Amino acid sequence: MHEMSSSMVTRLINEMLEGNILSLARLVTLIESEDEATPRIMKSINAHLGKAYRIGITGPIGAGKSTLVERLTSLLRGQEKTVGIICVDPTSPFTGGAVLGDRIRMQKHDLDDGVYIRSMATRGSLGGLPKTIHGVIKLLDAFGKEMVLIETIGVGQTEVDIMQSSDLVIVVLVPEAGDSIQAMKAGLMEIGDIFVVNKADRPGAEDTLNNIKAILKLNAERSNYDIPVVATEAVNNKGIKELYGQIAMKRQLLINNGQFAERRRKQRQSEFIETVINRITSDVINRLTTDAILSRYKEDVENGKLDPFTAANEVYKSIALNGKP
Amino acid sequence: MHEMSSSMVTRLINEMLEGNILSLARLVTLIESEDEATPRIMKSINAHLGKAYRIGITGPIGAGKSTLVERLTSLLRGQEKTVGIICVDPTSPFTGGAVLGDRIRMQKHDLDDGVYIRSMATRGSLGGLPKTIHGVIKLLDAFGKEMVLIETIGVGQTEVDIMQSSDLVIVVLVPEAGDSIQAMKAGLMEIGDIFVVNKADRPGAEDTLNNIKAILKLNAERSNYDIPVVATEAVNNKGIKELYGQIAMKRQLLINNGQFAERRRKQRQSEFIETVINRITSDVINRLTTDAILSRYKEDVENGKLDPFTAANEVYKSIALNGKP
Repeated sequence: MHEMSSSMVTRLINEMLEGNILSLARLVTLIESEDEATPRIMKSINAHLGKAYRIGITGPIGAGKSTLVERLTSLLRGQEKTVGIICVDPTSPFTGGAVLGDRIRMQKHDLDDGVYIRSMATRGSLGGLPKTIHGVIKLLDAFGKEMVLIETIGVGQTEVDIMQSSDLVIVVLVPEAGDSIQAMKAGLMEIGDIFVVNKADRPGAEDTLNNIKAILKLNAERSNYDIPVVATEAVNNKGIKELYGQIAMKRQLLINNGQFAERRRKQRQSEFIETVINRITSDVINRLTTDAILSRYKEDVENGKLDPFTAANEVYKSIALNGKP
Repeated sequence: MHEMSSSMVTRLINEMLEGNILSLARLVTLIESEDEATPRIMKSINAHLGKAYRIGITGPIGAGKSTLVERLTSLLRGQEKTVGIICVDPTSPFTGGAVLGDRIRMQKHDLDDGVYIRSMATRGSLGGLPKTIHGVIKLLDAFGKEMVLIETIGVGQTEVDIMQSSDLVIVVLVPEAGDSIQAMKAGLMEIGDIFVVNKADRPGAEDTLNNIKAILKLNAERSNYDIPVVATEAVNNKGIKELYGQIAMKRQLLINNGQFAERRRKQRQSEFIETVINRITSDVINRLTTDAILSRYKEDVENGKLDPFTAANEVYKSIALNGKP
C-alpha cells in the first residue's frame, strides 16, 4: 500500500468536509484498506457526525434489493435529500465484475452529485459485513449525506452486523412458495422494522403478505411492535412512496420511544468492541506465523504430530492478554 | 452449567468408545457448551481418530438438502456403513422448534443405531458454523462413524467454514431462473467438488445443469478439475445412487492426488487457529466488561463521550498480547 503523507491526509479530510467527492472516495479507500491514517481520519471527522440516517436493506439473493434501493434513491433525490449507498457484495476471486452486474442499473445515479455509491466486499471474502463498514458509514455522515442506505444479502452473520450498523432495518422478500418460512429460518424475521414484499405482481403475493404478518404475530417479543408489511414492484416503481411513508413514520416513532438513541448506543459499542477484537485477532494470526516457537506448534499441528486442541491450549497460555486476567 | 466430576467424564469417554450412543450424546453436549472437560475429552479421543470421512453438504435455503441427506443416509445404511449427521441451523430465539420442521422427516433414522443425528446452532445464533463443530466431528469419528455428513445453509461465512471442516463438499442447487447465477454470487461455485441439481423434475433443470457447467468452465482455477454435476429428485429417491457413485470416485481421486491429505492438514490448522482466536476473543470481551478501567472506556463510548475508534485504540494498547510483538 502506497503510504500517504500526513499533510496529504489532512488536505483530503478538509476537501472532503468541503464537499469534494473525489477526496471522499480516496478517504473511503484508505479506511477500507485499513491504512495507518485511519485513527487520524476517524478523530478528525468525529465532530462532524450525527446527520446521516442509516437504513439497512437486507433479504435473500434475488429479492430485487438493488432495484428497490435505486427507486428509493430517486424518490429521496426528488425531495432534495442527499444519499450515500453502500452495497455489500460477496465478491469472489473468479467471478469478479460479473456478480456486480445488477449494480449497472444504479449507474443512472452516478452522474448525480447528490448520490455517492460504494461497493464493498464482505468480510473474509464471503460472509458478514466488512469490518471497516463503521468507518465508511461515518465518512458518508461527515461528508453530509442525509441518508445512508446499506444493502446486504441477508443470511448468516450479516443480520447481526446489519442490526449493529443501522438505525432502521428493511427486510425485502418476494412472493414465492415458502419464502417467508425460509426467511424465518434465516433469522430475517427478527431484525426487520419494516418488511417489503417486492415483485408483488407475482402470484402468491397476497399469501406471502399474510404469512409474514402471521409469523410476526407469533413472536411474543415483536407482536406488540407494529411492523408494517409493504407490497412493492420496484421495477415498475410501484409502492415506493408507500414504503418511504412507512420509513418516515417508523423513524419518528423510534426517535420518540428512545429506540433510536439506544440503537446509536449499540452501534458505538459494536464499533468499539469489534475494532479491539479485529486488532487483537490480526496480532494473533501474525504471531502464529512469525514467532519461531509458535509457528513450530502450527507446523506440528498441520503435520498431525500434535492434537490441534491441545496445541491451541498451550499457545493460548503463552500469548494470553497483558495485565491481570 | 452443572459441573461434571473428572471420573464421570472418564466413564463417559470409555462408554462412548465402546459404542454407547447416550454417552456420545452427553459428550457432544459437553463439547458444545465448551465445558471445562473439553481439553481432556479431546486428548482422550485423539488416538481413536481417522476413520470418518467428512462430507459437507451446502446450498441455499429450500434446495432440499435435508431430504438429500436422508436419502444418502438410507443408501449408506444399505451398505452397512455407519453415519453421523450434523445439521447446522440458524435457530432463532422465537421460532424455536418450528425452523427444524424438516428435520422431522429424518426421524425415520432415529430408531437406527447406525445413525447419529445432531442439530447444532450456527455461530453467534446466525451465521457461520458453530465454533465447536471440529470437536463434535471428532467425537463422531472416535465413536466409529464411517461417514459424517455436515449439512449447512450455504451463504456467508459458512462456505469458508465448511471447506475447513470437510474432506469433500457437495453444493445443492435447484432449477430456478437465475439460481446458478445466485449461487455464483454467494460464492458457492468455488467450493463444490460435486454439484447437485435437486428437484430435477422441475422445468429448467437441463438449463441449470448446463449453466453450472458453463460457470465452472469460466473459472480458470477450476476448469481443469473435473467437477461432476448430478441431477437428483431426492423426494422421489432418484439420482441418489449416481450421486453416491460420484462421491466414491471423487473420494478416491482426492486420495490419489494428495488433496485429501492436504485438506486434512488444513482442517487441523483451522481448528488450531480458531481455538486460539476464540479463547482470546472471549478473554477480550470478558475484560471489557469486568475490568474497571476498560469498562469505563466502554461506557464513555456508549454514551458518546468518546469516539469508538480512538477508545478501541487505547484499550488495544493496554491489553495487547504478552511477549514480544
